[in-house]
Amino acid sequence: METMTRIEQALQAALASGETSGCPPKLAAAMRHAVFPGGARIRPQLCIAVARACGDSDPALADAAAVAIELLHCASLVHDDLPCFDDAPTRRGRASVHCAYGERLAVLAGDALIVLAYQTLGLGGSRSPARLCRTISTVSRGVGMPFGIVAGQAWECEPRVALSDYQRAKTGALFAAATAAGAESAGVDGETWRALGEWLGEAYQVADDLRDVLADPETLGKPTGRDVALGRPSSAREQGLLGAIEHFDRLVACAIEAVPPCRGSSMLRELVRTEAERLVPRAWCQRVERQHAERTAAARRAHTPSAAT
Amino acid sequence: METMTRIEQALQAALASGETSGCPPKLAAAMRHAVFPGGARIRPQLCIAVARACGDSDPALADAAAVAIELLHCASLVHDDLPCFDDAPTRRGRASVHCAYGERLAVLAGDALIVLAYQTLGLGGSRSPARLCRTISTVSRGVGMPFGIVAGQAWECEPRVALSDYQRAKTGALFAAATAAGAESAGVDGETWRALGEWLGEAYQVADDLRDVLADPETLGKPTGRDVALGRPSSAREQGLLGAIEHFDRLVACAIEAVPPCRGSSMLRELVRTEAERLVPRAWCQRVERQHAERTAAARRAHTPSAAT
Repeated sequence: METMTRIEQALQAALASGETSGCPPKLAAAMRHAVFPGGARIRPQLCIAVARACGDSDPALADAAAVAIELLHCASLVHDDLPCFDDAPTRRGRASVHCAYGERLAVLAGDALIVLAYQTLGLGGSRSPARLCRTISTVSRGVGMPFGIVAGQAWECEPRVALSDYQRAKTGALFAAATAAGAESAGVDGETWRALGEWLGEAYQVADDLRDVLADPETLGKPTGRDVALGRPSSAREQGLLGAIEHFDRLVACAIEAVPPCRGSSMLRELVRTEAERLVPRAWCQRVERQHAERTAAARRAHTPSAAT
Repeated sequence: METMTRIEQALQAALASGETSGCPPKLAAAMRHAVFPGGARIRPQLCIAVARACGDSDPALADAAAVAIELLHCASLVHDDLPCFDDAPTRRGRASVHCAYGERLAVLAGDALIVLAYQTLGLGGSRSPARLCRTISTVSRGVGMPFGIVAGQAWECEPRVALSDYQRAKTGALFAAATAAGAESAGVDGETWRALGEWLGEAYQVADDLRDVLADPETLGKPTGRDVALGRPSSAREQGLLGAIEHFDRLVACAIEAVPPCRGSSMLRELVRTEAERLVPRAWCQRVERQHAERTAAARRAHTPSAAT
């Protein structure tokens, strides 16, 4: 089965498990709004791609790990969009959960999605319970304290933070969990697979900073220019656009380099390349380079005494 | 080891696991604030009491289940206290988490506590992974959709709700999870243990409604009169104080009746009786009965034509 079909079906099944008669209907709707239609589903895709590259010997656990990681990602988006954080009116091209259902249901939908993530893992792990223990630990490490995405978000509440620590926790952690859990679901040591996820996560965060400046809001499905507006740490601000693009390219190269030897390694490298082009299209780089060249030339002209006068 | 010592030590170990160098310090402090000093720890006590009554053959899993349930309870309190819900300034006699650390850290502390709950379960279940799968499912059922405590809280966002459905989800579900998970940690079928938790949970919710009217804020550690102020469903309002006290007594009797036959059954029955007295002291009942009798007598006097005039 196509990876995306597999992911969407598993997500549908997970959500449906809680939507029995007698459940609070608005919470069910708010949870669904947070998960469907999805974004690029890059984390669960990565998880399943790694599981496949490692032999995919327990597809039920691989699906459960992929779903858990995507639900945890969706939960974090719902809570990050809340008025006390980004106060984002839109997400994925439509109203954010708190705008559509109110703040209370947004808080509860996030909570219920976190619970559903682990419930799905518990169910999917029943055939390989020993692997399940490792996968729970791996997934939790990507989300909780001290270095998971919730900890990453918490750095926004501290007076000082190193950009790389912030990015590693806020994005890299869940990518590393996706690659490690994918491997573990297939009975392979997850540690050797963490580096791929870490590089990709870092690349993704830099891409996110770039997209906040370079993409148009319609393509992005959310308002742009939020990092500057909210005074958030951003690679694009720290390194300039050209510097950030070069940084992104280096991170993608490191990710490709970090794919461990396995049957599916060339497929994985290709996935990384495709994803990099989707995130930061070549056309953007050319645009930024052209603008940079024009600015440099203009500055040179302004500082060179004209021979004619 | 004393049950309470066992619980506090296990909670301390769980929190400490995330407090490594390099973690965001305010989030760590907010999580600690939410968990220590605790309330009566009735849910983890119940979980461990049932595990003991069933033979306690895997104390590490029993401790993990008890800790998970208490952390999930603490997380729900932090989120229920948020400005968009109860906007409670105090909890357990001190500032609520959002008052002490701000709304953003309160949202994140709740999230991180939910993750830590499952992380603790995963670690504690490594010796009995098959039991772990059942325990994850049981704990999740007590928290998430369709009938767990998060779903219970979500009924407050619906236009109509049956009081019993609301109470069963908002409180009963986690009590039932505590008794069932305690049994499962010891390798015993959890289903036969759910009724005890359900009766106790319902009793606890009625007690909570009564305490909101009858206790003084200092004993309670939070403001009283909130149910009326927030227009929440309440037994004390629906049935009157005397009716609610009688209802509470009936529920406690049902809980005692529901203890399954086992070695520790008399210990468990005694625990239920002690807890009932702590929650709704006999002295309160006598006070309400006296006031009721006085009011009835006064009403009778007012309607009886006086022989003297």
